[in-house]
Amino acid sequence: MPSGEDDLIARYFKPLATDPGARGLVDDAAVLAATGSDLVLTTDAIVEGVHYLPDDPPAAIARKALRVNLSDLAAKGAEPAGFLLTLALRQADEGFLAPFAAALGEDAVAFRCPLLGGDTVSTPGPMMISVTALGRVPPGRMVARDALRPGDAIVVTGTIGDAALGLDLLQGRATAATEAGRAFLIDRYRVPQPRSALTRAVRDFAGAAMDVSDGLAGDLAKMCAASGVTATLDATAVPLSDAARAIAGTDESKLARLLSGGDDYELLCGVAQSKLDQFLAAAQRSHVQVTVIGVAEEGTRSPRWLGASGAEIPLQTLSFSHF
Amino acid sequence: MPSGEDDLIARYFKPLATDPGARGLVDDAAVLAATGSDLVLTTDAIVEGVHYLPDDPPAAIARKALRVNLSDLAAKGAEPAGFLLTLALRQADEGFLAPFAAALGEDAVAFRCPLLGGDTVSTPGPMMISVTALGRVPPGRMVARDALRPGDAIVVTGTIGDAALGLDLLQGRATAATEAGRAFLIDRYRVPQPRSALTRAVRDFAGAAMDVSDGLAGDLAKMCAASGVTATLDATAVPLSDAARAIAGTDESKLARLLSGGDDYELLCGVAQSKLDQFLAAAQRSHVQVTVIGVAEEGTRSPRWLGASGAEIPLQTLSFSHF
Repeated sequence: MPSGEDDLIARYFKPLATDPGARGLVDDAAVLAATGSDLVLTTDAIVEGVHYLPDDPPAAIARKALRVNLSDLAAKGAEPAGFLLTLALRQADEGFLAPFAAALGEDAVAFRCPLLGGDTVSTPGPMMISVTALGRVPPGRMVARDALRPGDAIVVTGTIGDAALGLDLLQGRATAATEAGRAFLIDRYRVPQPRSALTRAVRDFAGAAMDVSDGLAGDLAKMCAASGVTATLDATAVPLSDAARAIAGTDESKLARLLSGGDDYELLCGVAQSKLDQFLAAAQRSHVQVTVIGVAEEGTRSPRWLGASGAEIPLQTLSFSHF
Repeated sequence: MPSGEDDLIARYFKPLATDPGARGLVDDAAVLAATGSDLVLTTDAIVEGVHYLPDDPPAAIARKALRVNLSDLAAKGAEPAGFLLTLALRQADEGFLAPFAAALGEDAVAFRCPLLGGDTVSTPGPMMISVTALGRVPPGRMVARDALRPGDAIVVTGTIGDAALGLDLLQGRATAATEAGRAFLIDRYRVPQPRSALTRAVRDFAGAAMDVSDGLAGDLAKMCAASGVTATLDATAVPLSDAARAIAGTDESKLARLLSGGDDYELLCGVAQSKLDQFLAAAQRSHVQVTVIGVAEEGTRSPRWLGASGAEIPLQTLSFSHF
């Protein structure tokens, strides 16, 4: 009686559906109980050969699919409530599904974001994993992208450009200084580290926030445009990992590549000067590295990135676009 | 400055994002305000060449992508609140996107289900459209699949098997009696008619409900199994359209094909006998055809389908499975 599809869901995904709203995945829908919170919704899909490489480990693919969405929730100041998973597969391959589901389950527990439901379909083409993540904020408290104000400090988490370099390494376009550096950068490409630990600080102290997924320079330009402001950035202040610095050195064209490379999944926040100390202290308590890289200003020109000499660094490409 | 992707979103999808929670599609996330309602979540994806044919009209593909999800909301007794759209495209083709977005916008208005957000990605493979739809019910009132009780009338909306015959016609596996019949059945395959008008009646009077998407026989078997009951059905009572009857005649093997064919997107409800008159009256007021086709019974055997002679009709296949 159970079809292959039902069997696959029962074996691999029912164990992840621990929230009562998931109804054990036997229903057509999940339910999130009313709690008086606003619900924050975000959806991001990853496609084999586009967002990840066909030979990336299944566990890494699972983590990336969920984490790119968790990164969006953190940027909005929202606590995870659960996620829906849509899997388009060429075949039901146990060698893929077992480690995929195990890693997804680990992340669901680690980030307190249970599987609520989903859909599993067959495709003759590349695998695609689409996740819709749901979060909660107190009423009216979602942190917006378009609320950057002149004078706000522009703050970024973690280090920038690692993932773009990791992809370059995997595709033979760059060479790492050390084996450990290579492994670090590739891991940064494959497994994003959503800054969920900073969620509460973002909600309490950031006026504007978004996650950096398509490239820091382009994403900042989007935040400025949406907010009707501009910004001046100190490119030399942009936090780089040791492994990235070993490749980029002090070459401004290589630095430009890091500023426009995608897949960082760090947070970009605008913080009023009056709240900056509180934000920095909260980040320190959360063990999330944050760095002030510039300031928002009145005006509508493109944000300026200044190099070591104080002159503007020209950026050819600001970010990744699918089309 | 705007990338091709941003431009595509601004041109085609921003006009559909009329709900304040969509934030004009400029943010990374949408927000649904707390209203004291439970939130019902469902997600269904359609893949080119699997759920629709590559030469189906773009408008029909758009309507199908949204409506298969609206059908799930209606089955749960949930009023639509909005949807998220994930589009995986080989290229940004205006000849496809313009009619696709126009039809999607029409349906969003007609079904009061605005676009809240989404993701647009490139794929080297078949197009895929994944929709997550959100609905609201009063707290604790989502209608479950697993609550069919012995004695409940089993009721189905509309007519069954049309879409499976429509696909057979498109793929040359069947011949229609008339040109009008052919057009009707193909339209039933391409453009589901979610029974949203019955949402309130389902919530008020049905004890259990689900939508029929993989085949009536298989979906009923799933409802029975989830509820721990069985059922006896009168196969001759199953509502057929004139066009379907003209093809199936009284041939029980052809009838069996209709009972197990997918893509009906009708509602299957279990209604306590004490509420049946109210349910039928509400359906009549909503202009939705409903038909009692059997009764739920104690036991765990597979549901029995009885033919004109009173003997059981053997069903080889109960429903569609992707794997």
